[in-house]
Amino acid sequence: MVLGADADEPLPGIEAIRDVMDLRFASDAPSLIAVLPGAEALFLWRAPRGQLEDAWDAAGDLEWIHTASAGVDTVLFPRLIDSDVVVTNARGIYDPAIAEWAIGAMLAFATGIHRSIVDQQHRRWTSGRTTERLAGSHVLVVGPGPIGRGTGTRALALGMHVTMMGRTSRPDDTFGAIVASDRLVEVIGEADFVLDALPLTESTRSMFDARAFAAMKPSARFLNVGRGATVDEGALIDALTSGSIAGAALDVFETEPLPDDSSLWTMPSVIVSPHISGDARGWERDVVDLFVRNARRWIEGEPMVNLVDKRAGHGASEPGDTSTE
Amino acid sequence: MVLGADADEPLPGIEAIRDVMDLRFASDAPSLIAVLPGAEALFLWRAPRGQLEDAWDAAGDLEWIHTASAGVDTVLFPRLIDSDVVVTNARGIYDPAIAEWAIGAMLAFATGIHRSIVDQQHRRWTSGRTTERLAGSHVLVVGPGPIGRGTGTRALALGMHVTMMGRTSRPDDTFGAIVASDRLVEVIGEADFVLDALPLTESTRSMFDARAFAAMKPSARFLNVGRGATVDEGALIDALTSGSIAGAALDVFETEPLPDDSSLWTMPSVIVSPHISGDARGWERDVVDLFVRNARRWIEGEPMVNLVDKRAGHGASEPGDTSTE
Repeated sequence: MVLGADADEPLPGIEAIRDVMDLRFASDAPSLIAVLPGAEALFLWRAPRGQLEDAWDAAGDLEWIHTASAGVDTVLFPRLIDSDVVVTNARGIYDPAIAEWAIGAMLAFATGIHRSIVDQQHRRWTSGRTTERLAGSHVLVVGPGPIGRGTGTRALALGMHVTMMGRTSRPDDTFGAIVASDRLVEVIGEADFVLDALPLTESTRSMFDARAFAAMKPSARFLNVGRGATVDEGALIDALTSGSIAGAALDVFETEPLPDDSSLWTMPSVIVSPHISGDARGWERDVVDLFVRNARRWIEGEPMVNLVDKRAGHGASEPGDTSTE
Repeated sequence: MVLGADADEPLPGIEAIRDVMDLRFASDAPSLIAVLPGAEALFLWRAPRGQLEDAWDAAGDLEWIHTASAGVDTVLFPRLIDSDVVVTNARGIYDPAIAEWAIGAMLAFATGIHRSIVDQQHRRWTSGRTTERLAGSHVLVVGPGPIGRGTGTRALALGMHVTMMGRTSRPDDTFGAIVASDRLVEVIGEADFVLDALPLTESTRSMFDARAFAAMKPSARFLNVGRGATVDEGALIDALTSGSIAGAALDVFETEPLPDDSSLWTMPSVIVSPHISGDARGWERDVVDLFVRNARRWIEGEPMVNLVDKRAGHGASEPGDTSTE
């Protein structure tokens, strides 16, 4: 059995599976190719996009891949999708922290804390401006997976109005209904905040484009905790520049790290976060523990948790849900 | 009847009382002395500390003062306290926005958004750091008035543990109990966040001193939405410098605007906010509407709302409560 990626960094809790699994580590492409033959399971801790695809010819014995990420867009490739290899992910580990980040970002805008922190860097005491109430404002959450739902329930608790959007229209106990995403441009104009909590799939790529931003309120802010490529970043920058939307808080980007020359860095209405919204202290241990639990189930022949729908490109444990780190 | 302070700025909604009140405006000390004689009611929109005290000899006909602030420490002085003049305040107008600010500040620290905004000013992509979960953390709220309670209920809804502290120990339906503030140093060490939501009175002056900060967890943050003078600011700066506490978010200060040479401006773990946490869009109208409602009650001889306990120095409409803007 193989544990993918860096063996040099400690994987807290991994020892718990050594009694029933032979662990091998691979931290780069050559070592991955060397240890893959004979390996039946692969724990993808961290690996550049394409590394596993390049080594796929050596993966003939592989039955199961568990990834430490919640998003699987960087994990999946055609030969893996077409194979019988089962994929599970870290769905659920990062979600509550990401939901707190999304609420925190909305509050940073509404309460003026974002502006205060920026002004503080210049010793500017800018009283006389007014803030906004979060309660009574309206958030459109696009992506009704655990992150979207976790943000939505917190938003309701703080007195916000929540519209939850997913692939298909259906009733929902918490949010009244899930609105189908083909109505995005029609309903986006009602929202004070728009949260992108989408996985990256063929159908979500560039879902937030010039047309969507043009339909937003000029006073509204856009938040992204999904994947950078679900947004046409050029169109977002245009919308921010022209004032057709009022701000953005972004934890993910088309290119990460965000390039030095991106104009997002210096826009006064933008919060740039370095893809850390899910990395609450202890996340490494939680991810490894989940792998260990799934590994015991796999060995015992029991159903594993967090099965990925490889063709849809996201978690499939709850039908209709979409989630991503 | 007199409307204190600036007549030049629009007071949205004040026209509603003109049918039963003769309105005079005063924007400085000489005009205040000129219009006070004969005035039975005074609406203190904004006035420097001491202005009314200096004009008090001209206030012989005064029966009622309504202040646009929630805190009354800048309004009260010995001759007013000893007089029969009734004082009412704007309690309740600013509270929900301030509670949202307090939650936003805690989330700014926990989610790493504060650090991200600062790093963004230098185009620094600082991934690899971990964030914290707000849920499961512990906030000590000192001052169980509307601001403290509003913050506490939101904190509970987000999964935090809440200890509510007031002058006296007593049971409480929402928080289980109010802990007496003479136990501050004893219990402050349990908290990840400490919120000062105190009015400024003789008993709260410098309540947060070197001894209180020394008893806090080194990982804990201090938040102040009460009054600057409830904190020994020098002791707070020492605690931040030595690392005996991890950060602070401050909307009020001993001296406002915060002087240019204050070291709080440049501390990387401090959020400086220019006393705007309560100023949500529309607050002026809400404050005037409250005055108008109270003015009609006063004219009709009905009980007014938001009576101030002049000797205690804070709102008295709910026994045991303390509140402040």
